[in-house]
Amino acid sequence: MFEQVDLAEKLSPKAYKQVMPALDRRFAALQRRAIESGLPVIVVFEGWEAAGKGTLINRMIRELDRRHFKVYAVDGTTEEEELRPYYWRFWRRLPPRGKMSVFNRSWYTRVLQDRVSGAVKKSELPGAYEDINHFEKLLSDDGTLVIKLFLHITKKEQERRYRKLEKRKALAWRITRDDWVHHKHYKKYETVAEEVFARTSTPIAPWHVIPAEDHRLATVRIVEVVSAAIESTLDRRHPHPESSAPPAPRSRRKRKSVLDEVDLSKSISWDEYSDRIDRDQKRLGDLEYQIYAERIPVVIVYEGWDAAGKGGNIKRLAQSLDPRAYEVAPFGAPNEVESRYHYLWRFWNAVPKAGHVTVFDRSWYGRVLVERVDKLCTEAEWQRAYDEINDMEAQLTGFGAVLVKFWLQIDKEEQLRRFHERETKPYKRWKITDDDWRNREKWDEYAVAVDEMLARTSTKAAPWTVVESNSKLYARLKTLRTVIKAIKSRR
Amino acid sequence: MFEQVDLAEKLSPKAYKQVMPALDRRFAALQRRAIESGLPVIVVFEGWEAAGKGTLINRMIRELDRRHFKVYAVDGTTEEEELRPYYWRFWRRLPPRGKMSVFNRSWYTRVLQDRVSGAVKKSELPGAYEDINHFEKLLSDDGTLVIKLFLHITKKEQERRYRKLEKRKALAWRITRDDWVHHKHYKKYETVAEEVFARTSTPIAPWHVIPAEDHRLATVRIVEVVSAAIESTLDRRHPHPESSAPPAPRSRRKRKSVLDEVDLSKSISWDEYSDRIDRDQKRLGDLEYQIYAERIPVVIVYEGWDAAGKGGNIKRLAQSLDPRAYEVAPFGAPNEVESRYHYLWRFWNAVPKAGHVTVFDRSWYGRVLVERVDKLCTEAEWQRAYDEINDMEAQLTGFGAVLVKFWLQIDKEEQLRRFHERETKPYKRWKITDDDWRNREKWDEYAVAVDEMLARTSTKAAPWTVVESNSKLYARLKTLRTVIKAIKSRR
Repeated sequence: MFEQVDLAEKLSPKAYKQVMPALDRRFAALQRRAIESGLPVIVVFEGWEAAGKGTLINRMIRELDRRHFKVYAVDGTTEEEELRPYYWRFWRRLPPRGKMSVFNRSWYTRVLQDRVSGAVKKSELPGAYEDINHFEKLLSDDGTLVIKLFLHITKKEQERRYRKLEKRKALAWRITRDDWVHHKHYKKYETVAEEVFARTSTPIAPWHVIPAEDHRLATVRIVEVVSAAIESTLDRRHPHPESSAPPAPRSRRKRKSVLDEVDLSKSISWDEYSDRIDRDQKRLGDLEYQIYAERIPVVIVYEGWDAAGKGGNIKRLAQSLDPRAYEVAPFGAPNEVESRYHYLWRFWNAVPKAGHVTVFDRSWYGRVLVERVDKLCTEAEWQRAYDEINDMEAQLTGFGAVLVKFWLQIDKEEQLRRFHERETKPYKRWKITDDDWRNREKWDEYAVAVDEMLARTSTKAAPWTVVESNSKLYARLKTLRTVIKAIKSRR
Repeated sequence: MFEQVDLAEKLSPKAYKQVMPALDRRFAALQRRAIESGLPVIVVFEGWEAAGKGTLINRMIRELDRRHFKVYAVDGTTEEEELRPYYWRFWRRLPPRGKMSVFNRSWYTRVLQDRVSGAVKKSELPGAYEDINHFEKLLSDDGTLVIKLFLHITKKEQERRYRKLEKRKALAWRITRDDWVHHKHYKKYETVAEEVFARTSTPIAPWHVIPAEDHRLATVRIVEVVSAAIESTLDRRHPHPESSAPPAPRSRRKRKSVLDEVDLSKSISWDEYSDRIDRDQKRLGDLEYQIYAERIPVVIVYEGWDAAGKGGNIKRLAQSLDPRAYEVAPFGAPNEVESRYHYLWRFWNAVPKAGHVTVFDRSWYGRVLVERVDKLCTEAEWQRAYDEINDMEAQLTGFGAVLVKFWLQIDKEEQLRRFHERETKPYKRWKITDDDWRNREKWDEYAVAVDEMLARTSTKAAPWTVVESNSKLYARLKTLRTVIKAIKSRR
């Protein structure tokens, strides 16, 4: 794409002063429209060292309402970031509805700088490209506009700028050895960048190469490109593209659920249970110190029918763990802040650090369970969620996480028995709500959703374990042992 | 307090089994009551090394609903924490309404471990104690229950436990040289701990020394003490103690405001302005690189009348800064999540890292301005806010932050002129809302609140600067220069 850009073009100060105020006003007006219609916007700045990213970002945002955007410099890695999967750092910086995030360098670091430096190997490239394209598709599917700019200057211009900075005493420290190494490898970067454009310029998130030798021209082009992208997105779409679509007619015959095959008669005596539980808890406790020492993150997901015993089960699991190294993260309906983001955002925020355990008491599977059944999202949304979830889990396990997912299975009669028990025992009454009864009425719909979930998200690295839970004791031992086995097999 | 504790006392397994289930049930029931009535609870665990803090915390929480508490280990310092004032790490971990935070070690580290190790000097102690007492008072005033436990074992028992751990291969690594140093200084710690009790045992947050040689006895005592504290707090108070109190009658005669003395005729020509603004912006830009290099945090607070020009003023200030190193943090009414916390919580969350700049577009002063005038808090609440704010700011400046506070002053006529202008110019219309007109009607009440704010929160380290803003150009230059001067005087 570089050869399409004319670096000789210049803009006179006079012409700049003539066009810029109107462009700024238009851009500010578009920002307000984006705010009003809840459009999240991401602007990625990549480009050559000394191409002027910082200055041009600053110029671009000048007339915007500062309460509605943030600028993030992706520069080095903090300890917090190092201990979590690569994309965690970007999830944290995604814009909520109506806001803008400007990235000074981005998730392209891996296929640009890290690739040239050798930190990312050639064999890792296909995966890295896939991650990028999946990430941007996921954002775009959720309604986020992704605009990608590459600031282009020649090798000669780069050298000229380095020399100029070195001459200014106060700024000389900004030019480091790395910058000169980068300069020496200009040609290599050029080839790499062309490959990046080829692999990641998609209809939903195309690259724009910006001629950046002339500061005025670059400013005009940037504001133009970003404005045009926002405008065409706003014009094209309804504020909430999918929610207004009528739900697709669905005719599902009642069919056999895989859950029907689960042997719920499995049980265990109290004596046997007391005998084993202590031993298993101790084993897990010892393992925890080892995963801590070896910096392995552990993610444990609990899903299951209401009253299937998630709470008691998690309690027994947690008892064996050192509270400094684990956290139980409960998830219900998203709150006001969470609902302004992609549905996966709040789960990414809770991802454990390497060496720590997070138990998810309900999880991202809500998208294909309650949100599907209660029509809190569109069919298109939950349909694509399977892939999105598999991607997220692949990122976790790819980072080295142990990932265990439990579906706590009981039958309808057992649920009824437990509901009644909760209603009659005063100290259990707080556990039962009208929602539980309402969900129960939708048992068959849930069964279909669970079947599909198990089929479409059981992967080798992240398999589901269906836990026969009519016997609470049996279920507790089984989850404990499954976790122990999963950790051991990873070590 | 140590001598009041009988370490010889023991509890038989049988007696333990008899009393513990009822205690657990009562504790769990109290947790539910605390959740329902929105009581935030903090439990602090301090005590000797090897006193069993981790295990006992784990035991204490066993029967609680895991979705409503978190355990935090205060152990070492992350990079994120090091770059911010000491209490930032605790503010982040405060429980919202209805939740519980359990601290394994706490803000007492400074007056216990750090003092014995010499990291905190004797001359710093009075300040450290004051910080602790202010922090706990602030929490308590806001309705948070603070329970503090010190787990006590003898020097002999500590040695016995170390030796036992060292004998178990899998656990030997847990005993470090530091632990033995700690052991050697047992006597010194004892004296220090007694001093800590004497200085920080207050009626609102007394210390409880727990005999921890016998694990069963310790468990019973901990659950008893914590339950009793929660119960008596719940019994004593209404869910929202103050909000039901009738507002105190206030009879204020209209009197002269200090704001009336401000010379709003100050102005500057466009030529002079254009001439200076570039130069000053460049100076500030250069300074920014220096504060970054020297790791000085900068906090800039903007308050002022509606239409006083905060937005435009902030824009000119921000133009000179590198967007990687500053952030504009806008604050309106608290959202659903924020309103579950202490009113200062969201501002603590936005405190800049050392080397960075945060511009607060409205701030914690909302408590003594809009919340006072619109009666969104009680008089008692805004009255004590002055001290709380001064404390917070003292922590910022004590950490080395440059803190600049602007009140943008215009007169009532100028505001009216600007409101009309906003209504008539289409591209400015979004800036004016009904709220603005409503606020204008309360001009006199606001003037009283501003007067009192300026008088009670202008401190040497954090003085207010009233910016004459009838001339926007004059105001922009003045804020720029004030910031430049403040940074220079710190360096």
